Amino acid sequence: MSTPLSDLSRHPIVQAPMAGGASCPELVGAVCEAGALGFLAGGYKTAGGLYQEIKQVRALTGRPFGVNLFMPPSGQPADPGALEVYRHQLAGEAGWYETALGDPEQGGRDDAYDAKLAILLDDPVPVVSFTFGCPDRDALDAFHRAGSFTIVTVTSVDEARTAERAGAGAVCVQGIEAGGHQGTYRDDPADGPSAGSGAGLLPLLTEVRESVRLPIVATGGIMRGRQIAAVLAAGADAAQLGTAFLVCPESGAHPLHKRAMIDPLFTRTELTRAFSGRPARGLVNRFMREHGPYAPAGYPEIHHLTAPLRKAAATAGDPQGMALWAGQGHRLARDLPAGRLVEVLAAELDTALSDPAHRSAS
Amino acid sequence: MSTPLSDLSRHPIVQAPMAGGASCPELVGAVCEAGALGFLAGGYKTAGGLYQEIKQVRALTGRPFGVNLFMPPSGQPADPGALEVYRHQLAGEAGWYETALGDPEQGGRDDAYDAKLAILLDDPVPVVSFTFGCPDRDALDAFHRAGSFTIVTVTSVDEARTAERAGAGAVCVQGIEAGGHQGTYRDDPADGPSAGSGAGLLPLLTEVRESVRLPIVATGGIMRGRQIAAVLAAGADAAQLGTAFLVCPESGAHPLHKRAMIDPLFTRTELTRAFSGRPARGLVNRFMREHGPYAPAGYPEIHHLTAPLRKAAATAGDPQGMALWAGQGHRLARDLPAGRLVEVLAAELDTALSDPAHRSAS
Repeated sequence: MSTPLSDLSRHPIVQAPMAGGASCPELVGAVCEAGALGFLAGGYKTAGGLYQEIKQVRALTGRPFGVNLFMPPSGQPADPGALEVYRHQLAGEAGWYETALGDPEQGGRDDAYDAKLAILLDDPVPVVSFTFGCPDRDALDAFHRAGSFTIVTVTSVDEARTAERAGAGAVCVQGIEAGGHQGTYRDDPADGPSAGSGAGLLPLLTEVRESVRLPIVATGGIMRGRQIAAVLAAGADAAQLGTAFLVCPESGAHPLHKRAMIDPLFTRTELTRAFSGRPARGLVNRFMREHGPYAPAGYPEIHHLTAPLRKAAATAGDPQGMALWAGQGHRLARDLPAGRLVEVLAAELDTALSDPAHRSAS
Repeated sequence: MSTPLSDLSRHPIVQAPMAGGASCPELVGAVCEAGALGFLAGGYKTAGGLYQEIKQVRALTGRPFGVNLFMPPSGQPADPGALEVYRHQLAGEAGWYETALGDPEQGGRDDAYDAKLAILLDDPVPVVSFTFGCPDRDALDAFHRAGSFTIVTVTSVDEARTAERAGAGAVCVQGIEAGGHQGTYRDDPADGPSAGSGAGLLPLLTEVRESVRLPIVATGGIMRGRQIAAVLAAGADAAQLGTAFLVCPESGAHPLHKRAMIDPLFTRTELTRAFSGRPARGLVNRFMREHGPYAPAGYPEIHHLTAPLRKAAATAGDPQGMALWAGQGHRLARDLPAGRLVEVLAAELDTALSDPAHRSAS
């Protein structure tokens, strides 16, 4: 690879930022020390909390790492009527888990974006990536002047072109297979929960490769080294894995969330707006089945609304009420220490690259 | 490759069977002559019509080719009430296109499967593949004794395991990206049109690779040689392409269908039951937008019901009423003669295999 991306880690492997606790400093540090690129998730945190995590990572590793930020929603606030209907539909959940529903307005809509931006420009980190939109050219230029490499998450060719025009350093091409939130710039309430471009990683990656000149990080359903070889062959410069790292002992994901990945009780994943008001992929559980079909578009209001429910379900040890974000490859999750997982993935990748048509296979 | 698959064609490239006219003898012959594996589509044809096509292919090429069969539906016939409601909802279409709706019972439910089976066992072809289910062990054994290699289309790990237990020669792993019908064994009316496993090709392929020992043909959204390299790296033995061949001059697809693939008017594909009563991926047009949201499960009854509408729309030159089957990579379609397309794909594949991490790229 001839891109700046290749200077950031020994292996073309990126640990996905996973907002909600999974990509904690311990995970990021272990990943970076093993030669991959770790990512902190800025989403849902206060600016000060994020800064504390950055300092913890710096204490754990001297290698490059990244910070992901959620862009403020570009659309209108959630429709108050739709929100009120959904609140009524969740009343039974609140009764069941003996908690109140959250305040949809709590914490505002912009995830303290400006404050986090200020911190990252004041004390720069090696890589900054963005989800739910693309910063304008001024903001991206400011990061580049500060010495930060920038990556914008995209789910369509149009979004990739926007990122290129704005001056992004790279795009992270996210296929429909990915766990957690789709990074689509704008969630259109008229679309179903599986809308956006709805494209699988392989066709999307290829089309983006032929549409923009930026380096590409490919993400969505990747769990094995030979899948990393596959996306490199298709034109990516690196592969980003979330679910694969979520189950590592260093990950801060809830133990029930980790266990659910390979629990035969959970047979499939789906995209849903039920937990956050934006399409996100998780293991199909009771909450998703009951509320997914009618959950309206309304991020981050619905994220705030359901927060106490998800917390109460976790406290009660009930995975059927938790947001069990998972990519389509979840059944292939391996409970290995993060550094060991990086080594295994890198070895699998080397094997696949040295015998790309597996001619030596039995 | 050490599988029998590799004996069937020079390149690990399969032209997908496309029922409805696209994979006509001229296309199959040109593909085989160029060193890939061409496929006739048995679906929707009479047994006699299929046999005529087989004889035409034999006149065009001495190389191995395949025939695909639709398995008879394993579920109950369509719910008469749901069918009646859908018939009423299509009344406006019949008026608009000045035609009657089709008879849902016309031609029966089993696509003359037994008669086609008898022909293929009486005068065997090199390869037989199956869609919408898996033949039992006796039927597969009969094909193997006749000298035909068998391939069963699967969309989940469970279906792949069933195919292995039944003694299939290989599985064709179909990702959600694929154009036309999803080959899912059984269409559950309780599922949405994008149901089944809903898995992207790359994670599905990897999971099937680790679950069965059969050779794998990978299909869904593949349009370029480096995507073929990608699926080989991920564990496939060959790649199957439909949409890429649909636009070739030899293809029997309707000219409006071919043109629509790269028409900017059609921006995306979706899975729908609107045309046939089973989930199939096509370019989103007026008919899909209007009828997709409520079209019930009911294959092949709804296929027969809408047949006159689709025919009348084609006659009227109106792609908004036609079934414009297309995979997610449709924008990358190249209007090349089929033999030339095989050469280009094979050259792209060679380039990608010789430099799998594209280290020599600029």
